[in-house]
Amino acid sequence: MPAPDVMPGKLRLLVYSCAGGHDLFKGELRLPGYLALNANAKAPTLVDGDFTLWETTAIMQYLCEKAGDSTLFPRNPRLRADITRWQCWEGLYFNAALGTLAFETVAKARFHLGHPDASLVEQARATLSRFAPVLNGHLDGRKYMVDERLTLADYSMATFEPYADRVPFDFTPFRHIQSYFERMRQSEHWIRTGKAAAAQPIAA
Amino acid sequence: MPAPDVMPGKLRLLVYSCAGGHDLFKGELRLPGYLALNANAKAPTLVDGDFTLWETTAIMQYLCEKAGDSTLFPRNPRLRADITRWQCWEGLYFNAALGTLAFETVAKARFHLGHPDASLVEQARATLSRFAPVLNGHLDGRKYMVDERLTLADYSMATFEPYADRVPFDFTPFRHIQSYFERMRQSEHWIRTGKAAAAQPIAA
Repeated sequence: MPAPDVMPGKLRLLVYSCAGGHDLFKGELRLPGYLALNANAKAPTLVDGDFTLWETTAIMQYLCEKAGDSTLFPRNPRLRADITRWQCWEGLYFNAALGTLAFETVAKARFHLGHPDASLVEQARATLSRFAPVLNGHLDGRKYMVDERLTLADYSMATFEPYADRVPFDFTPFRHIQSYFERMRQSEHWIRTGKAAAAQPIAA
Repeated sequence: MPAPDVMPGKLRLLVYSCAGGHDLFKGELRLPGYLALNANAKAPTLVDGDFTLWETTAIMQYLCEKAGDSTLFPRNPRLRADITRWQCWEGLYFNAALGTLAFETVAKARFHLGHPDASLVEQARATLSRFAPVLNGHLDGRKYMVDERLTLADYSMATFEPYADRVPFDFTPFRHIQSYFERMRQSEHWIRTGKAAAAQPIAA
C-alpha cells in the first residue's frame, strides 16, 4: 500500500496532466490499457487492488485514510473541511491558472509543442490577478495553509511552485505567497520527493 | 446546525457563483461584510459559529460530518474517495463547462448582462465534448454516481441539470446522462429543495 510519502510524487505528475487541459504525454495516456483505468486520459491514476481512483485530491485523501495518517489529513471535521476547501480552491482557480501559464509558456517551449495560446495565457493571468490576493491575504501571518502545520492543503497549493518564477505573472506584490513558496521549497517532504524534473532548464 | 437537507439549496446558489467565473450578484458579493467572510467574492459561504467555510464541495462534506450522516457521505474510505473523485471532476470539467454555457447562453440573457462570450462558449463546448462521454460511460448500467445509492456525488453532478436542455450542447448522444438527469429530476431531495428559480422561463 502506498504511504503518504509518495504523494508529492503524485503531485509532480499533475504538472503534466492538468496544465491547460492538455496532455503532454498524450500518446501514453490514450493507450487502450490506460483509458480502461481512466477514460479521462489524464494522470495520475491510482490502482489499489480492485479499486481504481483518479483525481489528485481524492487520491491524496484516500492514501492518508489508508495509511492511518492523522497529520496531513486530520480527522477533525473543521480541519478536514479547511484542507478540502483549499484543495478545491487551488484546483479550480489558483493552480488551474498557474498550471495553464506553466504549460503554455514553459512546458510548450521545452517539449516543442508549439507557441503559447495567447488567449489562454491572458485568461490565466486574469484569474491569477483575481485570486493571488486571496491566497496572499490568507498567508499573512501564517506558515502553512491550515492550522500552522503541514497538511495536504500545502502539498496541493505548492504544486506549481517551481514555475512561479518562470511564468509571465508578477508575484512580487504577493510577498506572503513568495515566502510561503520559499518555505515549501525548503521543507523536507518537498526536497525528498524531488522537483528536479520540473526545475530543469527549459530547452530552447 | 444545518442538516444535509439544506445542501441542494447550497447547490442552487452555486448556479449563481461559478458560472463562467462571473458573479451574477456582484454587488452583494463585493460588500465589505461579505468579503470579510469570503475574499473570493463568491457564493456560497457557510458560517458555523466561529468557523467560516467556502467552496461547495467542502461545505457539503462538512455538513454531512456535522450531521453524523452515513449515507450521503459514508465513512468507508473507498466510497468517500469515489464521491470526492466525482465532486472534483464535475467542478473541474463537466460542470465548469456546463455552468459556463448556462451563464453565457441562458443567464446573461435573462439578467440582461450582455452577449455571450463566443470564445468561452466554444471552450466550454469543447470541454463538454471531451468529458460528457466519460460521464455517459460511467452511468451505463448505473442508477447513481457511486455505489447504487444517492450520495453527495449526485447532488454535485446534477447541479446544472435544469440547464442541460437549454444550452448549445447536444446531449442526445449521451442517453445515460439524459436518463440520469431525468432520475435526479424525479428524486425527492431534488424536488423538495426546489429548482423553480433555475427552471423559470428566460426573460428575453
